[in-house]
Amino acid sequence: MIGYNTSMDKIVECVPNFSEGQNQKTINAIFDAAKTVPSVKVFELEFNADHNRMLFTIVGEPDRVLLSAFEAIKVATELIDMNKHKGEHPRIGATDVVPFVPVSGVSMEECVKLSEDLAKRVDAELGIPVFMYEESAKNPDYRNLADIRVGEFEGFKDKMRKPDFGLAQIHPTAGAMVIGARKYLVAFNVNLDTSDIGIAKDIAGKIREKNGGLPGVKALGFSVDEKAQVSMNLVDFEKTNFDEAYRAVESEAKARGVAIISSEIYGMIPLDALVRAVKTTFKADTFKSDQILEKKLYE
Amino acid sequence: MIGYNTSMDKIVECVPNFSEGQNQKTINAIFDAAKTVPSVKVFELEFNADHNRMLFTIVGEPDRVLLSAFEAIKVATELIDMNKHKGEHPRIGATDVVPFVPVSGVSMEECVKLSEDLAKRVDAELGIPVFMYEESAKNPDYRNLADIRVGEFEGFKDKMRKPDFGLAQIHPTAGAMVIGARKYLVAFNVNLDTSDIGIAKDIAGKIREKNGGLPGVKALGFSVDEKAQVSMNLVDFEKTNFDEAYRAVESEAKARGVAIISSEIYGMIPLDALVRAVKTTFKADTFKSDQILEKKLYE
Repeated sequence: MIGYNTSMDKIVECVPNFSEGQNQKTINAIFDAAKTVPSVKVFELEFNADHNRMLFTIVGEPDRVLLSAFEAIKVATELIDMNKHKGEHPRIGATDVVPFVPVSGVSMEECVKLSEDLAKRVDAELGIPVFMYEESAKNPDYRNLADIRVGEFEGFKDKMRKPDFGLAQIHPTAGAMVIGARKYLVAFNVNLDTSDIGIAKDIAGKIREKNGGLPGVKALGFSVDEKAQVSMNLVDFEKTNFDEAYRAVESEAKARGVAIISSEIYGMIPLDALVRAVKTTFKADTFKSDQILEKKLYE
Repeated sequence: MIGYNTSMDKIVECVPNFSEGQNQKTINAIFDAAKTVPSVKVFELEFNADHNRMLFTIVGEPDRVLLSAFEAIKVATELIDMNKHKGEHPRIGATDVVPFVPVSGVSMEECVKLSEDLAKRVDAELGIPVFMYEESAKNPDYRNLADIRVGEFEGFKDKMRKPDFGLAQIHPTAGAMVIGARKYLVAFNVNLDTSDIGIAKDIAGKIREKNGGLPGVKALGFSVDEKAQVSMNLVDFEKTNFDEAYRAVESEAKARGVAIISSEIYGMIPLDALVRAVKTTFKADTFKSDQILEKKLYE
């Protein structure tokens, strides 16, 4: 019997990053280890030889995603020796950083708890010290990933700050690790009907949070195919979703006499972002993702 | 192992209607029979004692949905005797009408084929004559359900027109049946900030297809909670989706100096309708349902 016999009420995403982007055998072994856990989906493997780094995405129920990440971390710990690792990208360990991201039916608190549960296992079973970052940060100095990484693996050999789990001493081959929870990032671009990149930069400057614009919006102006593009990262779609970002760009563009050619949602997006966009745009206050027919199939 | 080991590329919906709305044991037996087929979802059972009629929804892969509908039809054929049936709603058989509706990855042609496959089995294995309606109609006189039903079960005993499958002679207890394929119907209401129902009726008259308005749009004006409501059935959301209907109502309301309070999508809606609304509204031409994270889980 082919079964859909698990409830998928709670879904999280995890995007572990490992310090291997050259040895295909090792890359596959780590990716395959994540896949050994039933009923999670493991996909979007990316690796880069110059960075000597790989990452992929795991989605599914919280407990199973944790298990899948742990299986991959175990294999990375066995196969990667950081003493021999060279790459352009800053890193502190064989498994470098493991973020958990709420997708649906899961609070940030639950993702923080999940990241802590994984950190405890990594410390206890693998003997790798763990720093907690972003929403999981216990020490404000560790909130920002770049701040934790200062000194990298090589610097940590001589001197390492006190981690949140484990001793202030790296694992001899796997180094140290960063684990945490963060919000889902939606990549969203709006293409303007002008070749004047100045207008895109101007609009980006106006709408980005840093300059007092929309909450959770990072924005830059680019030139793509000879057209000006406002390229955005929406780091908190519950505060500013893609439809709101679109309308803000549209209004700024209109004030400058410029029309929108198209927009693009880049990469994956949680269903909830779509549902929110429909609710807001069409004042459909009562609309729920449970009304989506396909969702019934997987309850 | 909990598995998601079937591809859900093709999804259809089926909403079979049976002539039983009073005997709870029979109602349950028919509903439960549909559920015996693995990996389809059977839900939204509705029944009405006055109409003496029940219906429910089956969604899943085409072959399995057919099987699920057939299991329910078999039990309805065993348990319902039309000679004893009384009810307000017109009907011609124990299983009265069985529409198949494309939801995603399925063409109307495939749904027509599916309806014919079911009709052949109903004729061959159960000996019930079948009329094909809507998109599956072979005889233009049978396209409209109400036209087929003229005379009902009682009239068919004496005189029955030639069906598309089987003989022009009813099954002694189960009567005859209507099977076919039709498009998905989206129920969509827009609530206006006025108590003047005349404005809702006026806008409804302007946008409905019958009067040269939007293709596939049926619209009526109502008064709901002392506010005017434009209530629509979108019978072909690939031609006119809810976002387009919303903008049409918005524009007509604006011309009459009236604002929109809210809108509501009523009941279930295919994911594709949401994806289309996002594409159209935000000029996101490249957006695909495959970009929805939750969908990855069920591939």
